[in-house]
Parts: sequence; C-alpha cells; structure tokens
Amino acid sequence: MEKPSFEKKLSENYRNIPPSFVRSILNVAENNQFISFAGGLPNPDLFPANEIRKSANAVLQESAGNILQYAGSMGYYPLRQWIAKRYADKYDMKISPEQIIITNGSQQAIDILARLFINQGDGVVIEKPSYLGAIQALSAYRPQFCEVDLEEDGANLSQVEDWFWKEDVKLMYAVPNAQNPSGISYSDAKRKHLAELLKCYDKFLIEDDPYNEIYFENNFPAPVKKYANNNVAWTGSFSKMIAPGLRNGWVILPDELVPHFDKAKQSTDLNPNNLTQFVIHHYLTNNDLEKHLQSVRKKYHEQYKAMQDAINHFFPDDVYSTTPSGGMFIWLTLPAGVSSVDLVQETMKRGVVFVPGNSFYTEGSGQEHIRLNFSNAQLPAIEKGIKIIASELEKMMVSIC
Amino acid sequence: MEKPSFEKKLSENYRNIPPSFVRSILNVAENNQFISFAGGLPNPDLFPANEIRKSANAVLQESAGNILQYAGSMGYYPLRQWIAKRYADKYDMKISPEQIIITNGSQQAIDILARLFINQGDGVVIEKPSYLGAIQALSAYRPQFCEVDLEEDGANLSQVEDWFWKEDVKLMYAVPNAQNPSGISYSDAKRKHLAELLKCYDKFLIEDDPYNEIYFENNFPAPVKKYANNNVAWTGSFSKMIAPGLRNGWVILPDELVPHFDKAKQSTDLNPNNLTQFVIHHYLTNNDLEKHLQSVRKKYHEQYKAMQDAINHFFPDDVYSTTPSGGMFIWLTLPAGVSSVDLVQETMKRGVVFVPGNSFYTEGSGQEHIRLNFSNAQLPAIEKGIKIIASELEKMMVSIC
Repeated sequence: MEKPSFEKKLSENYRNIPPSFVRSILNVAENNQFISFAGGLPNPDLFPANEIRKSANAVLQESAGNILQYAGSMGYYPLRQWIAKRYADKYDMKISPEQIIITNGSQQAIDILARLFINQGDGVVIEKPSYLGAIQALSAYRPQFCEVDLEEDGANLSQVEDWFWKEDVKLMYAVPNAQNPSGISYSDAKRKHLAELLKCYDKFLIEDDPYNEIYFENNFPAPVKKYANNNVAWTGSFSKMIAPGLRNGWVILPDELVPHFDKAKQSTDLNPNNLTQFVIHHYLTNNDLEKHLQSVRKKYHEQYKAMQDAINHFFPDDVYSTTPSGGMFIWLTLPAGVSSVDLVQETMKRGVVFVPGNSFYTEGSGQEHIRLNFSNAQLPAIEKGIKIIASELEKMMVSIC
Repeated sequence: MEKPSFEKKLSENYRNIPPSFVRSILNVAENNQFISFAGGLPNPDLFPANEIRKSANAVLQESAGNILQYAGSMGYYPLRQWIAKRYADKYDMKISPEQIIITNGSQQAIDILARLFINQGDGVVIEKPSYLGAIQALSAYRPQFCEVDLEEDGANLSQVEDWFWKEDVKLMYAVPNAQNPSGISYSDAKRKHLAELLKCYDKFLIEDDPYNEIYFENNFPAPVKKYANNNVAWTGSFSKMIAPGLRNGWVILPDELVPHFDKAKQSTDLNPNNLTQFVIHHYLTNNDLEKHLQSVRKKYHEQYKAMQDAINHFFPDDVYSTTPSGGMFIWLTLPAGVSSVDLVQETMKRGVVFVPGNSFYTEGSGQEHIRLNFSNAQLPAIEKGIKIIASELEKMMVSIC
C-alpha cells in the first residue's frame, strides 16, 4: 500500500480539535501587506531586545553547565521564587515557589490541566465567547462544553451555578483579566462570588491570566485564586510581559495538585526550556521591569484609544463595542443580520483582516461578532483599517435592507 | 469544603501514566555525592558552551524582532532545511523541510503522535524493554501495549507480525539505534523487514532516534523510514548532539500527516521555543559539527569501554551484558532469583545508584535487569561504582544460595 490514508486512523480525541481560523488567516495576512487586526501579537517595538541579549550572554557565561543539561521538570527554582514573590506581594496572597510549575507559555498549562481532569463527556464551563487556544486544548479531551454568557463584569454567575449543580461538571475555564477575545474583565465582586461557588460546589477553575500586567490605568482586581486557593489553577505568562518567543509561562497550583501536574507534564516534554528560563530570570532581576511595563501599558493604551476613536467615528451607532481596561482586543457586535464571516471576505479584498467571532464559540454561533487586535498595528493603520471595515459593513447593511 | 481531594477527580487517562522511578531516583542522587549510573544525562564536559553563547549573542544581535515574537508552529524554516539536508545526504533519502516539525525534544513528538493515533484500547506494539518516557507518554492515551522481545539485532519480527494481524493494532514504537535502555541496535536486515511488515499490514511506526549521531565506530544503518516513508514518523533530537537544555528535537513525517501533527501540536503549546531554534541553527552553520561529534563519540566510547571492562572484571560470569555500538546505556541481566530493586536499595547505602529494569516494562516484569548509564560518570567513578554493585550482588547471591 503506497499511500495509506491517515484520515480514518486518527484518534477520536484528535478529530475533536477545531481548526484555527486565526492560524489560517494569519498565514494569509503574513504573506501580504495586510493591515492585520487578526492576530494576538504583542507590539514588537516594545521587546527589550538588547537587555535580553545581554542576559543571554551573562547567563551562558556564568551557568552554561546547568543551562545546557537536562533539568528539573518543575522549572528553574529562582524563577519560581521570583514569580511567587511578585504575585504574593501584589495581591497580599500566600504563594510558595513549590506551588509553581514553569510551562511553555500558559497554553501548555491549559493542555496539562485538561489532561489531568477531563474524562470524555465531562462538563467544562466556558465563557461565551472564549479563547480559541483553550477551546482547542480542551477539545482534545472531548469534554461537554457548558457555555455561559459573558457580561460587562464577567461571566453570568447564575448560569455558572446552574451548571455547577451537575455532578459531571468538573472544570471551568475563564480569563478574568482583559479576556481574549472580548477585552472584558471580571469585577471584584464577581471574582469573590465565583470563588464561593467553586468552594461550595467543589469545582475547579482554570484561571488563565496572560494579560495580568497589561492594564491601561488601574491594576486588575485580585484573582479568584486568592479567595479559593484549593479550587483554582492560576496561569501566567512572560509572553505579554516580556516576549512570546521565549515561550515561558507558569501555573500556580493547589499544593496537592503539584505532583500530578508535574507527572503529566513530564510525559509530554520532560522539562521546560532551560536557556530561556535563565535568561528571563536574569532579565527580571537586572532591569527595571516596572519601567518596561509602564511603556508597554502606555503604548497599548494609546493604540486602544486610537482604535476606539476610529470605531466611534466610522462605525454606525448600532455597532456595539466593549471598553477594555487592558489587554490587546476589542470585541464588536454587528447589527442583526450581518455576518462577520462575509464581512472579512470583503475587507480582505481591501487589505484588512480580522477574526470573525464564531471562532471563539464552541457551538458555531457568534457570526455577528468581530475580534479586533490593536497591539500590533501602527496608529495610522488602525484608523485606515477601521475605516475600511466600516465602509464594507455599510455596503453590506445597505444590501440587507 | 476547605481541602478537596483531587485523587478521585483526576482523569482515567492521567491515572494510567506510570510513575517514573528514574525521576524519583534522580532526585535522591542529585542531592548527594552519589555515583550515578541512573540518569540518561549527556556528559556536560562536552557541551559547546562558548560556541552556544556566541551564537546566542549573534542571533539576538541580528534577529531579535523575529526571535522574540510568536512564530510559526512548525518551527524555524532554516533549521528544518538543515535537518532535511543532513539526513537526506547521510542516508541517500528524499526529505523535504515541509515534512519536518520542530518539537520540545523528541519526547514531545512521541506525545503528539500518541495523541494523533491512539483511541483507548488501541494496540501499540512495543519492545520489551522500552524507553520509560515513551511508556509514560503512550500510557496517557490508554492503549493496550503489545510487547515483543528485543533480541541482539532488534525486535522479534515474527512476534511483531503476529500483533500486526490484529485490526486494532495501529502503532509500533521502537528505538532502532542504541536503544534506551538496552543499548541494542537493529540490524540492517531487520530494518528492511520491519518496513515491509509496516507496508504490508498498513501499520504506523514511531521510529525514535535520539542517539543517531552517538555511535562509537561505525555509523548506524539507514532508518526504517527510508524503506517505508509513509508508514513512519522518524524523530530526532539535538539533546545528545548538542545539549538537552536547549530542548529542541524534530520529527520527520509522511506529508499527509504534517497538517494533523501541526494542529495537534498547536493545541498543546502554540509554537516551539524560538530563541533556542535560532541559536541551534547558528551553532550548526558556524561551527565544525563533525569535529564536535567526533569528540563526543570518542569520549562516550571511552566511558563505555571503562564500564564494560569493569563489568567483565568484577561481575560473576552469569551476569549477561549487552554490547552497544553507541548511545549511553548498558543493560545487564542478573542471575535467576536476584531482584535489581532489592540490589539498588543496597548499593544506594554505599552511594551508587542505577535504574532497576522493571521501570522499562509495561507489565511489571524485568526485575532481573539493570540499566547502567555510562555517559555522565568519570572513569574512576565508573570502576568504583561497578565494583560496589558487583560486591553487593555477590552478597545477595550468597544469601539466595
């Protein structure tokens, strides 16, 4: 048999992973001179390239033997100490380095947690819309998704509680800070209420928090983890704080879960990347991180305002837009009857690309929404791109009427 | 509920992952002044530390913007070109960069391939003994392991063929070059025969090949992949060639499987580590790799011979030892009735540690075997350690008689 067909041999779990429209659109966008609001890329102008180079040089001078060898599967201890101290201080929480495991971005933490908890058919409560990468990671374990509405101040908690009544609902996945794709953040009250629900119903939350450091004006409220330590795995990432190419994130776990997470992770790739862990730790302890973060926050705020201004100026009044207080995305709701999937086909002809909302739903709805990324476009391109989307939208609305 | 117990909530798949005795023994060994034959660590004296530092500095000077951003999920194209050319030339094969995906060591490739293929209960043919990390990765998908004997020249192929008759056997996992733990390599004839079986029965092989470059005198024969391209995923690793702390390996796939592997991998961690991919590529293209590899081969051969000599000298005649032609391990078979699990308890009291053979079996047997790593011990320590193991073994044999 010269060319076997793999399709029929692939596992049920694999087949359940939805394709990434984001990835396919990025491939198009990257090959051309597009104005792209599609990806979720940090602004590369803000990467501390020189400092990273100096750190790489320094750690390879000092510790090459340790860096280049296999290492502990939980990650570089001084880096875990740094993370524990930063977030314990920031939120007045108790966090020990022993609770922290370094991962390949926070994406790997989601995958490992899904592997740890999900039997086929188990319920997973998920915001509507939710992060596509999490939908993909979770889908590979064939859960039953239990969607809840995302409101201005976080998930609809009475819907959450309805799901929590069910025995076979084990997990919830949420992004309480500047959510991807909506930009919405949970209120302090909803965080505390969700913590109570988790404890009361004995459910477990994956609190995904890659945008923690990327607020515009005021720090985000303390995480759900603070109020329900044993019911929450709280993930973080250096991707937005420093640079995604270093591919290091972390997860802060309940003590009891640590050896299980560690064993599950070992089976996937033995240990995290040693070089980048040392580089990140050296960068963090030899540079003014606050100054760097302030410049990131200021720039993203500027880009956000430029996009929000353009939306207000060019879009018709019946387009609704979220008002994020941080992160990298704005979420639009189009007038009834307009499909964002059709819209992006038209705007792509004019060199502008974004991600239609249905990519962020587990059950195929969401075509009336648009995710717009503002962190990776220059200010003039933001105005120009929004203007083009608005004009194509108006054409479609005319044709509908 | 203050402290929920996770045990009962964890997934069936996770619970099926066996613990790693290697990892737990390493934790002990690393905390003390042990003579360790337990790990699978390359010799750190041979890491090209200076060259890696120079490469890190150079690539961060030239390409920081690309390195620090998110990147393609398949890996850095020039690195994939380098791999394709090296192994196409080495074995007179057709290999394109488009068939190659960069992974976090070859361990990740095993995990992703298991995810792609295995439904619960599917048969996976596996050598007896086999690599513990593969047993762990595969176990997380709950296959039925179908063990086959490993002979001096590779797996017993009539046993393989018996398993291949079964419809629900999809995969085989094998390490044809200097296998971990046995040190055994497949003969050229067995590689070709196995390729025929794979094609004839339409089965798929994970050909795990981390020790490809680590032969003592003669190159290993061409891989099974050469004779059954569409039925084999052939993995490789920079861990033994350069350094494991960089955590980059690769897999060479049949064309048709590439997009599936890519999608499955995206869901686990988005893309491979960018910095180390650039560093490795720069190192490979700006240094004399052959000279480096020759010094690694020479050193490992020297360490191997020291250990084999000590075994011949100190062990009783009824201890059987494999005679590897490369890699990092020797495999011993103890006289009947002696348990290596008991033996290691005694040698650890005298500061010597190794891994008992049962860690490398899927069904709990193998206690009469020992895996010895020779790449990470100094020559005097090798002699001293083997002498101690031999003397403890003799004590146990006396007490059995």
